[in-house]
Amino acid sequence: MKRTTEKLFNHENQEGHREKACAPWVVVCAPDSFKGSLSAGRAAEAMARGVRRAAGVRDAEVRCVALADGGEGTLAALLRARGGQTRRRRVCGPLGETRLARWAVLGDGRTAVIEMAEAAGLPLVPPEKRNPLRTTTYGVGELIRAALDEPGIERILIGAGGSATCDGGLGAAQALGVVFFDAAGRRIPEPARGRDLQRLGGMDLSGLDPRLARGRLCVLCDVTNPLLGRRGAARTFAPQKGASPQDVEQLEEGLKRLARLWRRAGLGVWERARCAGAAGGLAAGLAAWCGAELASGTEIILDVVGLDAALAGARLILTGEGAFNAQSLDGKVVSGVAARGRSRGIPVVVLAGGVAQSPPVATLRPLGIHGVFSLTPGPMTEPEAMGDAAKWLERLAANVAALYFSGRRPL
Amino acid sequence: MKRTTEKLFNHENQEGHREKACAPWVVVCAPDSFKGSLSAGRAAEAMARGVRRAAGVRDAEVRCVALADGGEGTLAALLRARGGQTRRRRVCGPLGETRLARWAVLGDGRTAVIEMAEAAGLPLVPPEKRNPLRTTTYGVGELIRAALDEPGIERILIGAGGSATCDGGLGAAQALGVVFFDAAGRRIPEPARGRDLQRLGGMDLSGLDPRLARGRLCVLCDVTNPLLGRRGAARTFAPQKGASPQDVEQLEEGLKRLARLWRRAGLGVWERARCAGAAGGLAAGLAAWCGAELASGTEIILDVVGLDAALAGARLILTGEGAFNAQSLDGKVVSGVAARGRSRGIPVVVLAGGVAQSPPVATLRPLGIHGVFSLTPGPMTEPEAMGDAAKWLERLAANVAALYFSGRRPL
Repeated sequence: MKRTTEKLFNHENQEGHREKACAPWVVVCAPDSFKGSLSAGRAAEAMARGVRRAAGVRDAEVRCVALADGGEGTLAALLRARGGQTRRRRVCGPLGETRLARWAVLGDGRTAVIEMAEAAGLPLVPPEKRNPLRTTTYGVGELIRAALDEPGIERILIGAGGSATCDGGLGAAQALGVVFFDAAGRRIPEPARGRDLQRLGGMDLSGLDPRLARGRLCVLCDVTNPLLGRRGAARTFAPQKGASPQDVEQLEEGLKRLARLWRRAGLGVWERARCAGAAGGLAAGLAAWCGAELASGTEIILDVVGLDAALAGARLILTGEGAFNAQSLDGKVVSGVAARGRSRGIPVVVLAGGVAQSPPVATLRPLGIHGVFSLTPGPMTEPEAMGDAAKWLERLAANVAALYFSGRRPL
Repeated sequence: MKRTTEKLFNHENQEGHREKACAPWVVVCAPDSFKGSLSAGRAAEAMARGVRRAAGVRDAEVRCVALADGGEGTLAALLRARGGQTRRRRVCGPLGETRLARWAVLGDGRTAVIEMAEAAGLPLVPPEKRNPLRTTTYGVGELIRAALDEPGIERILIGAGGSATCDGGLGAAQALGVVFFDAAGRRIPEPARGRDLQRLGGMDLSGLDPRLARGRLCVLCDVTNPLLGRRGAARTFAPQKGASPQDVEQLEEGLKRLARLWRRAGLGVWERARCAGAAGGLAAGLAAWCGAELASGTEIILDVVGLDAALAGARLILTGEGAFNAQSLDGKVVSGVAARGRSRGIPVVVLAGGVAQSPPVATLRPLGIHGVFSLTPGPMTEPEAMGDAAKWLERLAANVAALYFSGRRPL
């Protein structure tokens, strides 16, 4: 697998794809993960099996590209596409406990990948303990430090999705050498948590890791929300991380305090910046303290995995995710794939676990999406659908390919 | 509606369809009913709305043809296609009670349609009272008599599906004038029920309605099972009508006795005849006593509603039913539509409530079926899916049409 997909990154192999475009049907299977049931890689393989089994497309060339948007599965998708080594590092977990977190050095030896959720993810916190006042991104800073320690690393990609935190990156900054004080000038102990934002009075940047050159970090944001306000990190996302309405307002006030501190220290204006609210404001923090670039996780990942090369000569693109809805069109994998399909005139079809909230296909067509289908083969419970997701996805892909290619001639 | 579909029956209007074939896309929506949720007519209309709403096929000409296989919905499908008048007649119900049953005279004034389930259907019997030893087809005979009384009727179509009975047509024959005796020569009282088969000793045909000319009746059989044996009326269908294993064997013995009686009386050999086991052996009975033709309900109905004319110039056919599985391929609506699509080179797509038991699409392709999809947009209960079946079917049809026509040029 690694060898096949690695091909995608070299110019000569892009040419290789173009030559092979004389294969009668080229189909690209490029899904996100199906949250709770299938990794992006397993979803792509199920789709590919279906396409190969469809009548009339037995001689199809099927290309699998596992995708992610900076959330769950980012590490897996990038490792699958680019090869590389998984590393493990003992770090501070979301509640201050010790955790073993994975990160990776990609096959090029120059790119490190961190998934913030490995050190501070919501699934690491038992449901009854979830509360972003009590959680920290300290471990994410430790992972960044580990990547900086690695010889040869030029760029560090940080997947922002799935956080349990809303600390504006306070904990991560501590791990990278920033010292914080409360209004009375007392040092805030490590690891700092969401609740510490409210008593923030000052900071000392003199210990900040000098290796954090501007643009060395890139945050793969899975949302475009700003740091503050109605669409901000606290008000939009803290409730699903366990915050009560009062907690949310405390966090909002704390993040405001942090943004004022940044402004006064000449670290930039982050209140309304696009994507600054990703990962409970960790995105804003890494941008302010470390000069990190905030980018669309989807766009960066589509580039890194080489989707454009895989699309050369393709007749049909299958993508998908767990639940497809209007939010899927806002910078998520499906919309990114659709845009690239549309610009090449290749129809994109969405196969998802649930599509009940899908916009009508007539409104999706201008975005490049030519069909939206659920893998459920009839009435069933969610555990039933998830338990056999690979089987039903394979079946659906076979039917979609059979229907689409019905009566079409090879190019 | 009536005017549009009626067109289909005249030769000049078949030509009309061919002329209109210059419309860019002609799509035919020709489903069976979706048992428990949508009549065939409402299913066809939902599909049609979806096709019209699909991007790129706004200027499609969509033709709706409601179908049936001789079971539930036969009367409605034929009335919808051919026009006509519904009649009501007070008859004997499956348990001997009085019932108001519908039948119809089609628009041609020469064809009567009876659904046996109107007089002796399983839904008419409360679940705790279901038992084919206790039920009778007497009311079906009364409906046939009503049709014979109607001036101008040349042909009587009898939908065989949905019966609560396994009386070999004993009750119906009584209503048409046959008198039965037990082994001791005592007259069997009216209405005769399934349990009376076992004591059958003789019959007197002298009172049989003389208007029952050979070929005047046509039974629209929804199954091809024989009267006796493992695939017979008792062993295959009686259990789902409430018979215990012992009841089944009593019924099997009774039907054997009846078949011997027919043979001895020169009324034919019906033990293994194709379709003779339809409607608990009513099919065999009407054939033996009344010279009825036993036909595939699907084939007759496809002819009567004029499907062939509707297919002229079509690019795509959508069909469907409640649950699609291997049995759907055995003479049901979906297989009949698929065969006609295949012979004209028009792809047929199946949209159903449930498709979990569908054979793989690669094996369906030689039968003319190019895709099979469930209307469920994600995990949900059966009542949820059925409650909104029209909405989900419309959505699915829109997506199927958008995908199929994506990038295809008008003819």
